[in-house]
Amino acid sequence: MSDGKVMKVAVAGATGYAGGEILRLLLGHPAYLAGWLRIGALTGASNAGQTVGELMPHLTELADRVIEPTSVEVLEGHDVVFLGLPHGHSAEIGAALGKGVTVIDCAADFRLRDGEAWRRYYGSDHAGSWPYGLPELPGHREDIAASSRIAVPGCFPTGATLAGWPAVQAGVVVPDLTVIAVTGVSGAGKKAKVDMLGAETMGSLKAYSVAGAHRHTPEIAQNLQEVAQAPVAVTFTPILAPLPRGILTTVTAPLAPHADPAAVREAYEAAYADEAFVHLLPEGQQPQTQHVVGSNMCHLQVEVDVQARKVVATSAIDNLTKGTGGAAVQCMNLALGLDECAGLSRAAVAP
Amino acid sequence: MSDGKVMKVAVAGATGYAGGEILRLLLGHPAYLAGWLRIGALTGASNAGQTVGELMPHLTELADRVIEPTSVEVLEGHDVVFLGLPHGHSAEIGAALGKGVTVIDCAADFRLRDGEAWRRYYGSDHAGSWPYGLPELPGHREDIAASSRIAVPGCFPTGATLAGWPAVQAGVVVPDLTVIAVTGVSGAGKKAKVDMLGAETMGSLKAYSVAGAHRHTPEIAQNLQEVAQAPVAVTFTPILAPLPRGILTTVTAPLAPHADPAAVREAYEAAYADEAFVHLLPEGQQPQTQHVVGSNMCHLQVEVDVQARKVVATSAIDNLTKGTGGAAVQCMNLALGLDECAGLSRAAVAP
Amino acid sequence: MSDGKVMKVAVAGATGYAGGEILRLLLGHPAYLAGWLRIGALTGASNAGQTVGELMPHLTELADRVIEPTSVEVLEGHDVVFLGLPHGHSAEIGAALGKGVTVIDCAADFRLRDGEAWRRYYGSDHAGSWPYGLPELPGHREDIAASSRIAVPGCFPTGATLAGWPAVQAGVVVPDLTVIAVTGVSGAGKKAKVDMLGAETMGSLKAYSVAGAHRHTPEIAQNLQEVAQAPVAVTFTPILAPLPRGILTTVTAPLAPHADPAAVREAYEAAYADEAFVHLLPEGQQPQTQHVVGSNMCHLQVEVDVQARKVVATSAIDNLTKGTGGAAVQCMNLALGLDECAGLSRAAVAP
Amino acid sequence: MSDGKVMKVAVAGATGYAGGEILRLLLGHPAYLAGWLRIGALTGASNAGQTVGELMPHLTELADRVIEPTSVEVLEGHDVVFLGLPHGHSAEIGAALGKGVTVIDCAADFRLRDGEAWRRYYGSDHAGSWPYGLPELPGHREDIAASSRIAVPGCFPTGATLAGWPAVQAGVVVPDLTVIAVTGVSGAGKKAKVDMLGAETMGSLKAYSVAGAHRHTPEIAQNLQEVAQAPVAVTFTPILAPLPRGILTTVTAPLAPHADPAAVREAYEAAYADEAFVHLLPEGQQPQTQHVVGSNMCHLQVEVDVQARKVVATSAIDNLTKGTGGAAVQCMNLALGLDECAGLSRAAVAP
Repeated sequence: MSDGKVMKVAVAGATGYAGGEILRLLLGHPAYLAGWLRIGALTGASNAGQTVGELMPHLTELADRVIEPTSVEVLEGHDVVFLGLPHGHSAEIGAALGKGVTVIDCAADFRLRDGEAWRRYYGSDHAGSWPYGLPELPGHREDIAASSRIAVPGCFPTGATLAGWPAVQAGVVVPDLTVIAVTGVSGAGKKAKVDMLGAETMGSLKAYSVAGAHRHTPEIAQNLQEVAQAPVAVTFTPILAPLPRGILTTVTAPLAPHADPAAVREAYEAAYADEAFVHLLPEGQQPQTQHVVGSNMCHLQVEVDVQARKVVATSAIDNLTKGTGGAAVQCMNLALGLDECAGLSRAAVAP
Repeated sequence: MSDGKVMKVAVAGATGYAGGEILRLLLGHPAYLAGWLRIGALTGASNAGQTVGELMPHLTELADRVIEPTSVEVLEGHDVVFLGLPHGHSAEIGAALGKGVTVIDCAADFRLRDGEAWRRYYGSDHAGSWPYGLPELPGHREDIAASSRIAVPGCFPTGATLAGWPAVQAGVVVPDLTVIAVTGVSGAGKKAKVDMLGAETMGSLKAYSVAGAHRHTPEIAQNLQEVAQAPVAVTFTPILAPLPRGILTTVTAPLAPHADPAAVREAYEAAYADEAFVHLLPEGQQPQTQHVVGSNMCHLQVEVDVQARKVVATSAIDNLTKGTGGAAVQCMNLALGLDECAGLSRAAVAP
Repeated sequence: MSDGKVMKVAVAGATGYAGGEILRLLLGHPAYLAGWLRIGALTGASNAGQTVGELMPHLTELADRVIEPTSVEVLEGHDVVFLGLPHGHSAEIGAALGKGVTVIDCAADFRLRDGEAWRRYYGSDHAGSWPYGLPELPGHREDIAASSRIAVPGCFPTGATLAGWPAVQAGVVVPDLTVIAVTGVSGAGKKAKVDMLGAETMGSLKAYSVAGAHRHTPEIAQNLQEVAQAPVAVTFTPILAPLPRGILTTVTAPLAPHADPAAVREAYEAAYADEAFVHLLPEGQQPQTQHVVGSNMCHLQVEVDVQARKVVATSAIDNLTKGTGGAAVQCMNLALGLDECAGLSRAAVAP
Repeated sequence: MSDGKVMKVAVAGATGYAGGEILRLLLGHPAYLAGWLRIGALTGASNAGQTVGELMPHLTELADRVIEPTSVEVLEGHDVVFLGLPHGHSAEIGAALGKGVTVIDCAADFRLRDGEAWRRYYGSDHAGSWPYGLPELPGHREDIAASSRIAVPGCFPTGATLAGWPAVQAGVVVPDLTVIAVTGVSGAGKKAKVDMLGAETMGSLKAYSVAGAHRHTPEIAQNLQEVAQAPVAVTFTPILAPLPRGILTTVTAPLAPHADPAAVREAYEAAYADEAFVHLLPEGQQPQTQHVVGSNMCHLQVEVDVQARKVVATSAIDNLTKGTGGAAVQCMNLALGLDECAGLSRAAVAP
């Protein structure tokens, strides 16, 4: 791909947390450092006209860049366009961009294949579906590499799917899963809301969109259903915790009636033996979100509760990296034929 | 009870978080303010000889008090003795104190009735069982009031039992429960450990003692079994989160085959209609640990996932107040025939 | 004062953090528990019509109370009115309430005596000044007790004044003070702003209103000037830190040319020997905000840097308790002739 | 330098926070990615024999590496040795290593040139001094590039010196500085101590080593004295705040009698115009630690309090990156003749 041609990359919705994370990763990407990947238009809505320095001072190098208004005109002419827009807006812009542009969408619009599920959870018309950007889910890496339209997974579905699919596929659990995911506050985005103020979130924990009400529920079910041998049921409850980044997911499911507990770990070892960004921890060690912050890693563990006959898989990801911006860059790498790992760290910023 | 007699109260293991919380509450107790409840001996182990001011500067009023070594001699002669000791030590001191002393134990020693479960989880001889200090669990208020030996529940069992028993008792769930509880760091106690340092715990989430390995598992099962019509199974996984105080518990269980979803909420309304310290939130509002910090309250919600046919109950408590020290004072109030709510706040220190 | 008459207390601007803290304290006040202090109207602006349960779930007992719109009509007829309103609005309501009502204002309107300073920092007409509600500053306790109009100090001036005045009064420092105060996020109030989101404030520190730009600067100077023998200069810089509650203030000033370093500590010992809510820590122990959270205490230390010839005084308060709501209740106690400490804890909610 | 020769790099004291940060940066260093910088021996003390995966799970790639005991034998044979050892031990190992080895020391041993100051603050014999690894301080870049022995600055001196030297050198302030620095908890290192537990540090602020007692005081003074035209006085007070990483420093000093306030900002603009890792923010914008986390940046601002005639400079750094590990790698780059910025990010992990 580095045949002398310069790639121009735009980020629409650049000033949200997803956009900011994509930019952070691009600034350290070897193709950017080598000069043949260029950061082009950065667009926003209400903050168009302001500088990156005012809005995202952590991207020192881009401080003088001015945010442009989001439009097809501004985005056309780039080789790659990342969309960090609200759903709905994302579908509209995504559909309008020319076929020569590689479009990587961080919104929900093109994730669900079931229009009915879309309408139930989002209450609007279904825009269709694009290849789903989770290379670690069987069959998807190839689709991503072959496409110029990619739907980046939601942060919760990433953590839950990586924790759950090996057990579901291997048939070692009854596919009736209780998913409880504890998330940092950046998952709520950069919108001014009283209940997301520091004073309201520090020192506090709360569940929300409990009992299947969260929009990521059908996405988790869709992913697990792909590898399941029976209909999948998912009860999903997210919990908000006082940290900026990170999701710790627990997936609990009944051990399948005739399953050998030893087969459970084997399923995970087989699933992830060749994956750069999924690390099954040694037995006895639990994942910790701090150990993946800023990296594209998913740390995993799986245990069997022999008394209650349950399997408990746990995963840790950074919701903004592997959960959003890192996944987006990983998909770009695949779609452009680059090294899948380029610009993505396996080491985290800890402590 | 305030018949002119002065009550002397001692706290053994006063310098740990449980002891400190009991002292905080006693200092605001109307019986203390009125002068007829006196704070007597405060004991410790390695820090005997130091002052409260050095060890617990937040108890300004007691700053000059000196910590004495823990012994039966020092504790005898008090009317009430709170034990905030490590398990094992607690059983030893508890057994040795005279019958005239009301002993309220915050350790695990006397909580389990099943010696086999004790040995499996604690690996030592079973000391027996005392009335279990959870007045909100059917039948227990009377036992507590009639006894001079009380075992204060564990913090996780408190949050899980309050969230779970009404549904189990009403038979609206299959008693096969997945309990995921997210806890603040004070639950780990005041021992110097690298993995509990601020730098290791701030900004991080991790599960631990996953899949039934935590010692509170048999205690949760014991409580729910008391009200169940069938054998109870519990898979319990605690998660450590970066906040000082608070436990947010989710209890997920299958909706019973013929249960009416509407009956679920009714079970909780009936269970807690007369309880001062349990507040079932209005529909649509989820409990938040911040709203109970420093108070003796448990905030609760219950919802039904009709698609996955699951019941999800959530509870928020302060692990040091309703989860330990507040429960201990509530039990003292009952045992002494005082107003059960005396000295216990229903308002929290928020934000 | 408890001559059978029931006192009715209203809180205007009840749904902000100051209002919520006043209500938390009133709910535990012995006069409330005894039944002769009643909580009357609770008013708000945009959230009038909502319940306390929706807005401040931590005040469980008041959950069903409905917020009324703020107006003189709603507030008249109460014996005590606390004002937790934005400045300007506070002056307007405060001026309109009848003389028989004891009005305790948590806004800035009536704190400054110098109209010129008011106009420079607030850019509007000066409403005048009321007795200043810091009983620990010489001469003020009597004024407060004799008045039915009290201006509660700002949170930063409370921490800075308590740390600074003894040294200034004793003449052991040159009254040229550098005040750096680190504050928790609740000080910014309960308004939705992007830069106060949890994700923006957790894990971060920033100075703001640096170098004398903060509105509390002239208030600090006014307080210290009262006890000074020479003109006072104050450079004040606040820093925002990731905790809900607490202010840690450092006051650094040159040791006076002929001052004896030993005289420094003596000045503080003399100043606070009889104060219930100010605790000078033993030498070698520094104040920590955690040790005052939820209490009305100010913990203090003072040290001399003999090499650089500087005095460094440090204080810790809870910005919502001693810094606002606790001070308001302390003033109410004084104005009503109650025990100054009634309903105010000297023990903190730690850890 | 990349003439085909492979560079072997060792880290002594690899399992502390400084060592871990150096390793994180090396894993992303272009020389490592290109294969000619190799990570050799990783040593520790009590944890020798354990794996990196057990001790620092965030360095996924090195998970299977075993920690060796720290000794000259183990370290000799490397081209570069980073020392992340306790002071004293550092001097001993540093002195024993051969001259062909480039040694970069993160401890204090070789920072102070004044043996008297060393003895007063450290109470032991002075080991001497090495070139001081702050390339942004006039004259030091060249010394570092020419040396195979480098003393990496302390974290507080880095933040304070970068904030203070331009004003001191330009003579726009009287060199009598009050330095208050608020730091995250990782600065205290990875030792198990009760007062550094999460429960003791979250939600709390405290000053420590107040009024010139901190060992970084003479180091700050030494740096500023180098560029001063008169004797420098420094009062330094650090404050511990509840965040993992970051230092926010305020330097307050009297405006020089005849100085033009406008000259203050000019001094900083001139000082840092060509520095990659120091960014003077536009007027009106204050540095925030979140915006430098994980990066090697120092964000700066300077303001003049014209009323109190003070200059207030503020800086934000990540104590583990620019404050330790990033500075160490920057020095390695200079000493090896590499691009000074190689492997060091100017973009931070925010939020």
